[in-house]
Amino acid sequence: MNSIKNRTYGQESSWQRVAAPEVDRFVRSALQAGGADDASADAVARALVGASLRGVDSHGLRLLPHYLKVLRGGRINGRPELVFKPLSNTTGTLDADNGFGHLAGYRAIEEGISLAEKNGMGAVSVVNSSHFGAAGSFTLAAAEAGYLALAFSNSDKLVLAHDSVAPFHGTNPISFAAPLQGQQPYLIDMATSSIPYNRVLHYQTIQRELPSDVAVDSGGHMTTDPLAAAALLPLGGLGYGYKGAALAGLCEVLCAALTGMAFSHQLLAINGPDLSTRRRLGHFFLVMKPEAFIERSLYETQMTAYLQDLRTQNAVAGSEVMAPGDREWRVQEEREAQGIPVDPVLLQVLADQAEALNVLGLTAC
Amino acid sequence: MNSIKNRTYGQESSWQRVAAPEVDRFVRSALQAGGADDASADAVARALVGASLRGVDSHGLRLLPHYLKVLRGGRINGRPELVFKPLSNTTGTLDADNGFGHLAGYRAIEEGISLAEKNGMGAVSVVNSSHFGAAGSFTLAAAEAGYLALAFSNSDKLVLAHDSVAPFHGTNPISFAAPLQGQQPYLIDMATSSIPYNRVLHYQTIQRELPSDVAVDSGGHMTTDPLAAAALLPLGGLGYGYKGAALAGLCEVLCAALTGMAFSHQLLAINGPDLSTRRRLGHFFLVMKPEAFIERSLYETQMTAYLQDLRTQNAVAGSEVMAPGDREWRVQEEREAQGIPVDPVLLQVLADQAEALNVLGLTAC
Repeated sequence: MNSIKNRTYGQESSWQRVAAPEVDRFVRSALQAGGADDASADAVARALVGASLRGVDSHGLRLLPHYLKVLRGGRINGRPELVFKPLSNTTGTLDADNGFGHLAGYRAIEEGISLAEKNGMGAVSVVNSSHFGAAGSFTLAAAEAGYLALAFSNSDKLVLAHDSVAPFHGTNPISFAAPLQGQQPYLIDMATSSIPYNRVLHYQTIQRELPSDVAVDSGGHMTTDPLAAAALLPLGGLGYGYKGAALAGLCEVLCAALTGMAFSHQLLAINGPDLSTRRRLGHFFLVMKPEAFIERSLYETQMTAYLQDLRTQNAVAGSEVMAPGDREWRVQEEREAQGIPVDPVLLQVLADQAEALNVLGLTAC
Repeated sequence: MNSIKNRTYGQESSWQRVAAPEVDRFVRSALQAGGADDASADAVARALVGASLRGVDSHGLRLLPHYLKVLRGGRINGRPELVFKPLSNTTGTLDADNGFGHLAGYRAIEEGISLAEKNGMGAVSVVNSSHFGAAGSFTLAAAEAGYLALAFSNSDKLVLAHDSVAPFHGTNPISFAAPLQGQQPYLIDMATSSIPYNRVLHYQTIQRELPSDVAVDSGGHMTTDPLAAAALLPLGGLGYGYKGAALAGLCEVLCAALTGMAFSHQLLAINGPDLSTRRRLGHFFLVMKPEAFIERSLYETQMTAYLQDLRTQNAVAGSEVMAPGDREWRVQEEREAQGIPVDPVLLQVLADQAEALNVLGLTAC
């Protein structure tokens, strides 16, 4: 995101902490003042606050200025009429009416749960959507209700196809969550590129060299210069990027071929210049009920044993072996107690937005 | 596979060619003579010949001596009574009765198709199975019948968890196939490690250095020495291996937590020494009917456009951009015409097996 490229990752002592409910209040009221209805504001706030709490700052509060901008630009319909159309006993499609992808994502998961409750599984494709933030927001919602879930999205082109010289796929995320009684869910939420694009932007700002094997310049040649980087490599890099590219392709098939929506290489860039045209973005969600496969108690026993064995593996020096999501749950615990850290630049941008929208500004802890 | 480590990848001019129907005949009769019933021999032959034709030699004919060995050892039940138990409108579990995983895989896909035909989707978990060869064999069977499919398996531990020093996950494969009218399917079939373990064994034999960032020694330190390599890194290597490890974990949840079977780190090693104890391996298959999401003609239009755009991307010098599976379909076309190349050492092993089992040996083209 060009306008907010200075704010991402890490945390400095000068940053202020804001309590999660206050962030929630602010996101909600800013979006409402910006033209979003209650349901849309609720969904975006839930997703952004959740991501910020889990430490996924790239998809947290820092996205709010962007969302306000595309709401103003007209790309996003702030008062969408979502229509869910069942297509079989287990499948359906949700028309997001060009509203926020977050609202569509939570609604799709609800419909998926409802289908899975009746028939074991439910899959919901989403059409006419837009950026939905962190894919993990939605699988997490399913896991919190006791279900397994997978979520997929495509996104505008930033990542090479294998052996291509220019970007073709988006950073196309895949998320998977599995519930655990008395524990936070097992939670995978990953881009199918090695690094997210905003890490390139961040490294441009702090003038830090990129790792090798993650980006290419405009000629398609490997580069570690963040200013020269024009596209990302898929997960697996030069040698094994065909695997990351294939996973990105899986997202394309599920989110575009199976929905009639745009493929990544056809999508309008997230940051414009066009902020008014609807993007025709698709998502895909799959919800599964554990009891449709195995006795619940055995599932719980198996998951618990697996995670315990994983977490007690001998680790490389200075580290420990964690399950997907463990790092996030630790950050969440700390941030729920101490507040969400917000850097001074973002804080100023949000203060300006508050003034422009005539809403009460964000109050630090 | 220790016993067959000399035979993998590539092809030399000294290799002989054997016509696919002749390979099929030989695999079938050798397995039958080794104690497998017709259905088991058919399924293994179909999977091995298919993999060999597609150029997936690591999972093709070269596995036959291993399968004959575990059939003799008693690990594999050559005359299994498969029992499919529906668990909901869309899910069921198949007890493989410790037979060949290939037989279970094809049967699970059939049951998945039957569920999907009625209700849009079908998921089938498999219990009490064993090695099923190439995961792509089964998704391909679904795609050939007009369905989308995902396949997952776990396997004995060879791959680090992220930040662990010793192997914990298997090379846990994920496969996805999507049908296309008048074209070969879109076919992803990938281990969740960067390289397969038999590449390490092969490089030991030819004394070639491994690429960097794919393997560690017994102390958990990176190595490029194939003789020192004790475990593989997950896809993404040192920097991003948490993503490959998460994908391996997805296989564990679906194939073991959701089935009650063994996790990778609990599984008996594929190559023994114990070749008699049943392995308690699980698999997981998901079948989806495109028409349960979108009009078939629109799906076909979308897939065709996507693949055409992908294949016509500008490529790095000396290469071309291919879709997942494209390389395999080219090899298949060539091998269907010219025969499957078999190296002299494997040919000799197979001749010995033929003699021991009193079946007609493999005849080259």
